[in-house]
Formats: sequence, C-alpha cells, structure tokens
Amino acid sequence: MSLTVVGSVAFDALETPFGKRDRLLGGAATHFSLSASNFTDVRCIGVVGNDFGDGEWAVFNRHNINTDDIEVVADGKTFFWRGKYEYDLNTAHTLDTQLNVFENFQPKPSEESKNSRLLFLANILPMLQKEVRESSNAEFVAMDTMNFWIDSMKDAVIETVKVVDCVIINDAEARQLADEPNIHKAARKIMSWGPKAIAIKRGEYGAALFTKENYFAIPAYPLESVFDPTGAGDTFAGGFMGYLASQEKIDESAMRRAMIYGSVMASFNVEEFGTERVDRLTHDEINQRFSDFKQFTHFEEIPFERASSAA
Amino acid sequence: MSLTVVGSVAFDALETPFGKRDRLLGGAATHFSLSASNFTDVRCIGVVGNDFGDGEWAVFNRHNINTDDIEVVADGKTFFWRGKYEYDLNTAHTLDTQLNVFENFQPKPSEESKNSRLLFLANILPMLQKEVRESSNAEFVAMDTMNFWIDSMKDAVIETVKVVDCVIINDAEARQLADEPNIHKAARKIMSWGPKAIAIKRGEYGAALFTKENYFAIPAYPLESVFDPTGAGDTFAGGFMGYLASQEKIDESAMRRAMIYGSVMASFNVEEFGTERVDRLTHDEINQRFSDFKQFTHFEEIPFERASSAA
Repeated sequence: MSLTVVGSVAFDALETPFGKRDRLLGGAATHFSLSASNFTDVRCIGVVGNDFGDGEWAVFNRHNINTDDIEVVADGKTFFWRGKYEYDLNTAHTLDTQLNVFENFQPKPSEESKNSRLLFLANILPMLQKEVRESSNAEFVAMDTMNFWIDSMKDAVIETVKVVDCVIINDAEARQLADEPNIHKAARKIMSWGPKAIAIKRGEYGAALFTKENYFAIPAYPLESVFDPTGAGDTFAGGFMGYLASQEKIDESAMRRAMIYGSVMASFNVEEFGTERVDRLTHDEINQRFSDFKQFTHFEEIPFERASSAA
Repeated sequence: MSLTVVGSVAFDALETPFGKRDRLLGGAATHFSLSASNFTDVRCIGVVGNDFGDGEWAVFNRHNINTDDIEVVADGKTFFWRGKYEYDLNTAHTLDTQLNVFENFQPKPSEESKNSRLLFLANILPMLQKEVRESSNAEFVAMDTMNFWIDSMKDAVIETVKVVDCVIINDAEARQLADEPNIHKAARKIMSWGPKAIAIKRGEYGAALFTKENYFAIPAYPLESVFDPTGAGDTFAGGFMGYLASQEKIDESAMRRAMIYGSVMASFNVEEFGTERVDRLTHDEINQRFSDFKQFTHFEEIPFERASSAA
C-alpha cells in the first residue's frame, strides 16, 4: 500500500476566462501526489530550486506526501510554466516555459521509492521514465506521456510503453501514438506492445479503460463550471493509482472503480485554480461523488419484448 | 403504442473513405422509422417524387411502417443529397442538395397520425414542426433541429421548442441554441423554455439525458469500424422514441433505457451504408447490445475507506 511518482514539480502562471494567477504550485507530480494522497501513502521523486518555499512544502507535508526524493538545487530555480486558456477551456496555450532545474533532472529514487508497490511515471523524457521503471520493484507501473515526446521521439516512448503495465493518456495521444484514428484499434495496438491496460482520458466526455478482455467506459462528472483544467489529467491518474494502491488485488473490478475515483478527483481539480480545491478535499466529498457516478450512470436491464402483433 | 414521425424521405449519394454509393434510400424520417419499427407501430409523414420506386416502398412495407401519409408528387422528384466524409468521419461535407418536392412540403397528417400516442418532429422547417405538433393529440412529442435553422431563424426554433416535451439534438446544436458553452447550463436553459427532457447526442462520445430532476450519461457502443455515419442521429431518435412508445409509462427509468436503445440502434446504423444494416436487424441482436451496454458500464459501488495510519 504505497505509491511512488516521478515527474515535474513546478510553478504555474495561469490565465483563464475566470481569472489570473501569477504563481501557483503546479507540476504533474504535484497534482498526482495530492490526488493520490487521499487513498494511500505517496512518495514523490522530483527536483525544485531555491525558490520553493515553506508554503509549497507545507502542501506536501499536510497530505503526508514523502518528499525525501525531491532534490533541492540550491543555486537553481523551479520549473516554471505560463499558460492561457481561451473561452472553451479545452486548449492550453503555452506562453512561456522555463525548464530551469528540470532541464537536467536526473531522478534518484531511494530504496524506499524503489520498493513501492505501485509506480507512476508522470510525463517526463521517456528515457528517464524507463530508467526509473527499471530500477523499481513495483508490482504495477503506469505511465503518462504527451504529444511533444510522441512527435519528437516516438521510438523512445514505445520502448517505455513496453515495460509498463498501464498507459494513462488522452484520446488524441493514444491515436497519435498508435497512428490509428479508431480509439479501440489504437488501444489494442498499444496493448500489443506490452501493457495490460490503457486508460484513456477524454476530458469533458469522460474516460475509458481497455484491458485485454474487457472494455469499460464512463462519462465525466457533470460540472456547470470549469475554472482551471490544469493538472486534471495528473489528478485523474493520482486518483486511479492511489485507489489501486489501496486495494489488495489490482484486477478488472478494482480498475473500474479506480477509473471512477480518478474521474471524481479530476472533477474537483478543475473547480478552482491549481491545487486549491484538491488541497482541502474530504473523504466524504470524494465518496459522495463516487456515489453520484453510480446514480447518473445507472439503468435497469430489462430486455425489450415486442408486444405488438406487428412483430 | 403508436408513433408518428414527420420529416424527410430522400435519396442520398455518399462517399466515405470506405466506398461510394450513388443512390441510397435516406432521409431523417426514413432512418427514424426503420429504427423505431423494431419497437412499435410507426406512421411516417413525408413527401416523395415519381422516382420513388418499388424497392424503396418495399423497405417501409417490410417493417410494417404505415406510409399512408407519404404524399407522392407525380411530376416531381424526391429530395436528393450528395455528401462526402473525410478520414475521421465526423464531418459530412455537402456536395449537392436538390430539395425537389421537399421544397414545398406541406405535411398532411391523417386522423390516425394525429392520434398517435407519440410524435417525432424530425429536422424540417421549424414552423412546419410547430404546425404538425399543434394538430396532434400526442401524449409525448420530441423534436430535432439543426444548425442551419438555429443560424437563420432561431426564434422560430425556440417557438417550436416551447411546445414539445423533449428535444433530441447534438452537443454543438444545444450550445448554439442556448448560446451557452457549458452543456449542463445549455440543457437547463432549453428546459426553461418548456421541454421536460433534453437528449444530447455526442457521436463517438455517447449521449446524455437531462431532465428537471436528473442527469444520465452513457458512453457510445464501442465500434472498431464506422462505415457511414449518415442517419445515426435519426436512428438514435428512432430507437429512443420507439422504445418509449412500447412502454406504458414514459418516466425517468423508461427514458434511461430508451437512451440505451437509441445508442444501440445508432451503433448498428453506422456499420454499413445507408439503411442496410438496420434493415435486417433482429431483436436478439438489439437486446445483445443492450446487455453489452450494462456490461461495459458496470462497476461495483464500494465506498473507499482509508486503512492507512496516514489518514
């Protein structure tokens, strides 16, 4: 019942139609850890600069996230991203990226991190993901990636895909990675390289889980206002992996519930800026939305029988 | 247990990445009627020209669809549409539209049609939809529309929306009609004009049902190959309304199952050109996919309990 994540810890500057923030705690590993910490003990592997302050560490500490493997580069600055969302909130436009200490990030997992039962490789250079995976004794390993790596080094991405159990990516990334427009064929092609499960994130349209034998799909949690989608994918992955870490058996049934918990966590994340909403979540709130999911997807299974003479 | 539809009966010429056909039986009322005929007795109101032949009538007759209210204009030609789909099959590009006898279509519902228990107003001029609705004694009336009418005569569309029980449209049309990008807010706004239900079609992403008190959403039936999406929306509506016509009570529970049956019917429609697949469907095939829906959306409702000391 432990989970390690490797990925970015960052500062984000954001502009959405609803407001603007100059410096928010962000990064894939941050969003993932916070989300997963609701379900299990989390260890985070990353790197930050000397501008990472008490307020930021406090967020990790508050959620009992182990930060022993977050390296602090004394003469460096933390990874910084500035982005802007237009009216529809679907597309983030990058205005500025300063890699800073992240540019030469070399993950150094401790023995404890190597011995975590689960491992998540957040979106970083695929060769680094592979290194961390190969140093780990985890029973279940999942990875994310992004269009940037698929464009520039698809072979390296595929080499990493080959050594994980589960790929958690979005719709467009799956199609691009498999070079196949049909998502069902794309998922099967990716699984043919090794993974036994593919979790596809579809934003406001929900999510789908492909395994060798089964298919599972859910709509998104209904939200009347989406405030800031930054980190939603990592928050989903954190709920998914965190829930799995809490389960004795990682089987189809657990993975289906993990998909729901992932979606629930993502639904909270987008309601406020950055990590603000997830930072103060309660278990009751989480379980309430899990239960809502059952409610708004339920239907009675009554096969149709034609009564009319016209049958 | 009867259902009347008013709308287009047409010939389609289609080009998709998978093939080409010069003359297929098509039109919204055709796709709707064929789909609905699997569940109930259907009456179709429309107009055709002298080019509508024995082969076309045979399709209606085979499914026991009453065509008494399909007017035949002896010196006219049937509505003709030529379209092309690109690689992703999401967008139909219109290459040619010949309204022909449809240009001056004046629906003439018989007494039997007026007394149908359910009525569907397929996508035609909103003023005609309203006329047919007002001449009808139906207990439950649903309508479709399209971006063309919302662009050119939104007020007339809204006047029709006000007098129906249910609106069955796609995602983009709902946002456009309500002038509201968030689909949940858009649905509530449309319901504020009168309808008690809005069924939103999302193509490969599934469908959602909004009622005053409830929300229900489903993914689409998983398909590895989509051949021709023409008529999928009308086939969905036919399954939805046809199933409701077979039920004694049109309540939330029946509408949820109707959403599944609508999705099942649409999933068959897109597998082959035009009406070909739906024309030879069996009840067992339909019920099998209904049952598949239960399978691929099912998850166990087990609330999460934190076991760790870190809670």
